[in-house]
Amino acid sequence: MSSSSAAPAAKPPIRDALVAAAFRLFLERGYEQTTVDDIVALAGVGRRSFFRYFPSKEDVVFPDHEGCLADMTAFLAASGAEHEPVRRVCDAARLVLRMYAENTTFSVQRYRLTRQVPGLRAYELSVVWRYERALAEYLRGRFAGRPDGTLRADVIAAAVVAAHNNALRSWLRSEGEGDAGAAVDHALGYVQRTYARPADAPAARARTGAAGADPREADDVLVLVARRDAPLWRVVQELETALGRG
Amino acid sequence: MSSSSAAPAAKPPIRDALVAAAFRLFLERGYEQTTVDDIVALAGVGRRSFFRYFPSKEDVVFPDHEGCLADMTAFLAASGAEHEPVRRVCDAARLVLRMYAENTTFSVQRYRLTRQVPGLRAYELSVVWRYERALAEYLRGRFAGRPDGTLRADVIAAAVVAAHNNALRSWLRSEGEGDAGAAVDHALGYVQRTYARPADAPAARARTGAAGADPREADDVLVLVARRDAPLWRVVQELETALGRG
Repeated sequence: MSSSSAAPAAKPPIRDALVAAAFRLFLERGYEQTTVDDIVALAGVGRRSFFRYFPSKEDVVFPDHEGCLADMTAFLAASGAEHEPVRRVCDAARLVLRMYAENTTFSVQRYRLTRQVPGLRAYELSVVWRYERALAEYLRGRFAGRPDGTLRADVIAAAVVAAHNNALRSWLRSEGEGDAGAAVDHALGYVQRTYARPADAPAARARTGAAGADPREADDVLVLVARRDAPLWRVVQELETALGRG
Repeated sequence: MSSSSAAPAAKPPIRDALVAAAFRLFLERGYEQTTVDDIVALAGVGRRSFFRYFPSKEDVVFPDHEGCLADMTAFLAASGAEHEPVRRVCDAARLVLRMYAENTTFSVQRYRLTRQVPGLRAYELSVVWRYERALAEYLRGRFAGRPDGTLRADVIAAAVVAAHNNALRSWLRSEGEGDAGAAVDHALGYVQRTYARPADAPAARARTGAAGADPREADDVLVLVARRDAPLWRVVQELETALGRG
């Protein structure tokens, strides 16, 4: 994924050559046993070229996350009031999946590598944290002034990231078999049904009154909550009123 | 918090002395400017004593997390089928809060330190990840064989951790003002209402059928979901069946 979806810059060939050389050596010798000097020697460039593109050896393992984070931030910044916020962060998370799915072989190799090297696992956690914060910051803005706005924003952002990663990691563990997009859609659908506004995902909570129509029903669905010991005629009366047929 | 709630071992005085010396120096000189040699000199012990208790300088900043993780794992392992799983992981998360609340001054100082030192921030992320995995593994066991069991386990574990940390961090940012326990209870309550079984937190989701009683209703509440365009007689029929009066 390019660093900007608006004006995709061509990736510098040196950068690509460094990534290719690094992964070839990581797979052949192991990550710890490969030095930056080994990488630049194989890529045929100088040390300074490496550090122009990557602050450290760890960064060459995750060459596209900075660009993807920038894309995600831009995508969320371009959101309007017409976007249902939970659906919007789900769509933002799909940008990460797309980055992984664009190069299955590389993604599967990297997944194996991060499982083996604790330092890379820590690096990956910090990247995931930055994605989660980007989603949470957007939701905090959308939920500003609402009761428990920051709580809901943080919880939903965490749920989106966990659902996305559950599907992504299953796909990576299966060596890239099957449709990653469909798996992520399914996982994000679970979060959307739980948290999105009813227009996107009909949902309701039980009320404790004698009987009543939930005000959060979707356009085409009515949710009625009734005490089991309420008289049937009373429940039917409520039902008729709620359906506008009373 | 001791490393075992069953038989609380007395904390070794040397370990406590090392933590106290380390924090005094971190606050006076800064974390990066303090060496392990400085810490052992102030505590009046040898270098080998330090490394007997702490693998690295980072570990002395979080002296109680290993014990708390062990407590959490033991708590979850001691769970039975009678424990509602979402409530159980919320209770497990409260063990972490208790550890922080036991020493407010220390927790607030450490919070400030982790905000300033990127290495400590990364360390903390890996600790949070281990708590989240402990909760998720327990839930995966409880949800085994259910549709989307691992997905639900991962999402709920992430939601619990995010809610807990939202409340914990607000409390730490306020320098330990107010009732941390009440704040965490409130935050976890949001997650429990969303995900726990109805006996714990009555909740239902809309179904897309013509009409139907939600099988997850609480004992004394019936939740009926009906399409607005469904014939009234059909909805009433469903209602009668669900109430056992048909």
